[in-house]
Parts: sequence; structure tokens; C-alpha cells
Amino acid sequence: MPDPATEAGLVLTGLDLLGIFVFALSGGLVAVRKELDLFGVLVLAGITGLGGGFLRDLLIGAVPPASLEDWRYLMVPVAAGLVTFWFHPALGRMERLVTFFDAAGLGLFCVTGALKALAFGLGPLPAALMGMLTAIGGGMLRDLLAGRVPVVLRGELYATPALVGAALAVAGVEASLPAAVVAVPAAVVCTGWRLLAVRRGWDAPRPPGVPST
Amino acid sequence: MPDPATEAGLVLTGLDLLGIFVFALSGGLVAVRKELDLFGVLVLAGITGLGGGFLRDLLIGAVPPASLEDWRYLMVPVAAGLVTFWFHPALGRMERLVTFFDAAGLGLFCVTGALKALAFGLGPLPAALMGMLTAIGGGMLRDLLAGRVPVVLRGELYATPALVGAALAVAGVEASLPAAVVAVPAAVVCTGWRLLAVRRGWDAPRPPGVPST
Amino acid sequence: MPDPATEAGLVLTGLDLLGIFVFALSGGLVAVRKELDLFGVLVLAGITGLGGGFLRDLLIGAVPPASLEDWRYLMVPVAAGLVTFWFHPALGRMERLVTFFDAAGLGLFCVTGALKALAFGLGPLPAALMGMLTAIGGGMLRDLLAGRVPVVLRGELYATPALVGAALAVAGVEASLPAAVVAVPAAVVCTGWRLLAVRRGWDAPRPPGVPST
Repeated sequence: MPDPATEAGLVLTGLDLLGIFVFALSGGLVAVRKELDLFGVLVLAGITGLGGGFLRDLLIGAVPPASLEDWRYLMVPVAAGLVTFWFHPALGRMERLVTFFDAAGLGLFCVTGALKALAFGLGPLPAALMGMLTAIGGGMLRDLLAGRVPVVLRGELYATPALVGAALAVAGVEASLPAAVVAVPAAVVCTGWRLLAVRRGWDAPRPPGVPST
Repeated sequence: MPDPATEAGLVLTGLDLLGIFVFALSGGLVAVRKELDLFGVLVLAGITGLGGGFLRDLLIGAVPPASLEDWRYLMVPVAAGLVTFWFHPALGRMERLVTFFDAAGLGLFCVTGALKALAFGLGPLPAALMGMLTAIGGGMLRDLLAGRVPVVLRGELYATPALVGAALAVAGVEASLPAAVVAVPAAVVCTGWRLLAVRRGWDAPRPPGVPST
Repeated sequence: MPDPATEAGLVLTGLDLLGIFVFALSGGLVAVRKELDLFGVLVLAGITGLGGGFLRDLLIGAVPPASLEDWRYLMVPVAAGLVTFWFHPALGRMERLVTFFDAAGLGLFCVTGALKALAFGLGPLPAALMGMLTAIGGGMLRDLLAGRVPVVLRGELYATPALVGAALAVAGVEASLPAAVVAVPAAVVCTGWRLLAVRRGWDAPRPPGVPST
């Protein structure tokens, strides 16, 4: 984790916590819909919220992951899990909520993941990929544990917005813009693209000769 | 791995090997019931026995994991796999045995995992979580590879005893008790709680408004 | 990654790229057969091609993995994914092709994985195991993400040829033979054994008392 006294560090930490919260909500909602119990909800919330960052931290050598040594990072998914557990009926139409939380987490994590990889000395291309992994990793682990093929592979535009959002953030930092200036529009592009893709049913291209499902 | 000449080191190594053996037995039995072949049995025994420790070691930065550089750690799951392979009919009622081995591994690993994380400088909260991960990680990998939703998410008390056992071990060490004194009761609490939960059908609470399955 | 100026380094890099390409083809073909879209194909190609090496690098402490910092390693699975995406109908009988690519990747990766583990100071036994993990890890991740029980556990001779190929490479290097001399025959033994096992329907032994499926 970068020095929290710096502006970039504060932005990173704040966005990270927000991303963890919304991703953990999506994990908790999947767990509720799978009829798991309280601890299944907490575990799935935690893995969805922290899993992408763990995968990124393992690959860039940032161990132990910062989120393990900062109680706020550990309490946020617990809080999200409890919120999901108690208030899921009031949350109403879950399908849309899961999709929205997922898209918001996607946008936040692709940016924070890419910025952290840059801060650990990775080049622009690997940093953008680490941003994408941070964004899609938690959801992939969530889907694997919930016993379904990961959303990211299931024919919807998902990985691309994350990669593009991460690439925008990397490009901005490479152009010497402050991280705080870069982060928000890059995240908005990713989340907005993802939400539009869901709403309009945009699909990534399919292999020629294979019928669309 | 801590200095094996110290008391704590000896206790850790002995319990680790025992935990790996019983967890590997549980992995081997799942493989036999899934009608896998000899190498499927050995692979699943190895991953179940060593997987939780690998995940912990990756996250605390203890790489290469000690178990990779100590042939005893590698031979123990092979032995457990062969025992399962040849003697599974004699092992009789497998359902109960799988449950028992699983609970014993749970108790042993939550303690050794937490103690190792403390030894690598993690704070009390992350160390307790690493203990839980060590305990539930191998079984989660086993279930993922065997194509089923992990036991830990399936509505039985599983993660909680592991977290409480790990927390007890951490609390004992923080209170300056010797690891050897702390380890056994903490493991017994976890294993006993898990076995009671299975026998009495204790369940973790379910989200309000979701029918029990 | 070893110094590319050395002979062993060049051999390792070349074989690594070739192994990544053929494994990524196998991942891409599985994705096409699962009717995933372009990005599903690229993601599955990338994970199959690079996943085994990532697992090895994480466990031996070689982070960030060399493949993340070398654009050739990142472009190779993209190229393989695009080839699969556009030309899969021309690739004709896919079943055989998937099997062949898988066997070729198995042979190449068990050798490069073992040599890299030796280069990072692991002993002979763990180095051979890391070679096997490099070879079977990408395919295991591919199968997990595609929602099927990994091939390696499904009753065909798969892990054994990889372990033997890795052990041969380790034995050769321990006998002071140059890596270039050792690599090819060890890979050929593994790939040939695997292909023969598929063609002749060789199976690993099954537990006594369990009916063959």
C-alpha cells in the first residue's frame, strides 16, 4: 500500500475500500440467492471483495497483502456481508442490484489495481493487465466458489471495459496526470460501458461458425 | 518454517505433518468416491493436505513454502493417498470417516496456520484469519477440483470453529503462553465444535426471508 | 527468468514461448467448444498458457512472474487465441487437436518448469514437482474456469508423464548435462507417453473395489 499521507495514497485507499464494499455486496447477494448461511455469505463477500486484490498482490509480490494488515480492509467485507444478510429483502430487485454493484466494483478495481501495479514498478502493459485482473479476479473466484462458470467468460462484455479502464488510468499516470484526476473518469468509463453493455445486450464477437447461444 | 530446534518449532512441525496426513486422507476418500484413479487420488490427497498451507504461505510471503523443501511434507500426502487407495474398503463407513478426518484437519490447521502467521510477523487479526484459511483452504481446493460447491459454504458450521480455534491460539500466544500449551486445547475446541455441529445438525443462521433447504 | 544471454536461458525462453502458444491453443479450443465469445477465448487462452507458470512462479517466489514483464509472453497467448478464434473451423477435427496441443504443452512445460525451479535454488524433488505443476496447472485452471472436473483427475494418464519428464530433466541437470541437451528428450518422453496413453486408452490404476467407469 502506498504511503497514506500522499494524495495518490488517500485516493487509492478510499477507492479500494469503496470497491471492496460494492464487490462484497455482489458476493453476498450471490450467496443469499444460492441460499448459503451467514458464514457462507460472509466468506463469499470477503472473497469477492478482497480476492482480486489478493491475486494482484500475489503476482506483483506485495505480500502480505496490505488488506491483511489493515483492519478496515477486513471489516468492510464483513459489514457488506452483514448488510446483505439482513437487508437483502429490502434491496428489492436483486438481479439489477447484483449487476450494478458488479459494474461499480469493476470500474473501481481496474483503476486501483492498475495504479498499485504501477506503484510497485510494473510497466504499463502488465500494470493494465493487473488492473483487469484485480477487477475480474474477485468475481471469478466468487463464481467458481458458487459453482458457476465465471460471468467474465459467459459472452457478455466484461473483461474489455475493465482492461480499457485500467489502460486509461495507466495512460493518464504515464502522461504525468495526478492519480486523483485520472482515477474517476477511467472508473466511470469502465462502469458506464459495462452497464450499457448489460442494458443494451451488447455482446463480444463470437467465433465464426459457432452458433450464438 | 520456524527453527526446528525450538519447542514451538517441533510442535508446529509435528502437528503440521499430522494435519496434512488427516486432510490428505479426506482428499483421498473424496477422490475414491468420485471414482478417480491412483493419480487422481494422490493429486487430490496432496492438494487437500498441502493446499491450505500453500495459500497461507503465499499470502504471508513464506515462499517457497517450507513443505516444498522438506521431503517429509511431500511424502506424508503420498502415504495418505496410498493408504486411502488400498484400504478404503476396510475404512468402512466413509461418510463418517471423511467428516472426522476433515474435522481433525480443521482443528490442527487452524492452530498451526495461526502460529506460523504470528511467527512471520502478522498481527493478531490477520494471523487468526490466516489460521482459518489454512484450515479451510485445502478443503475448498479439494471441493473445487472435485466439482462441488465447497463444504465451507454449504450451510454447515465449518468456518466458525476454525476461526475460533485460530483466535484462541493467537490469544494464548499473545498472553505469552508457550505454543505447546496453547495448541492442543485450541485445536480440540475447533475439532470438537465441528464434530458436535455435524452430529447435532447445528447450522449457521440463514438470511431472513430465505427458506432453509 | 535466467539471464537470456546464456544458452540455458535462450533454450528456456524459446521452449517457454512455444509451450505457452500450444497450451493457449488448447485453452482457446475449449473456449470455442464451450461457445464463449472473443474475450472468453482470449482469457481462457491466456490462463491456460500462462497459468501453470504463474502458479510455479508464485510458489518459488519469482514475482512478478517474468511473463508479466516481457511483452512476448503476453502477446503469444493473444496470438494463439486469435488463431483459434478465426481458424478453428479449418483446424478440423478438434478432439485430436486439443489432445495433441495439450500433450505438447505438457511435455514442454514440465521441462521448463523444472529447470526454472532448479535455477531458483529448489532441490531436485521440489523442482520435479514444480515441473509437474507448471505442466498441469494451466490445464487445471482452464478446466475449472470452463466448469468441468480437471482432465488430470479424470482417470487418464496425465500427471505421471509430466512428473517423469520433469524428473528426467532434473536428473540430467544434476548429472551436469547442458539444459539444451536435457530438455528435448525429457519433453519428448512426456509428450510421447501422454499421446500413447490417449491413443491406446492406457489408464492409471483404480482403487480396488471401485468399479471402472
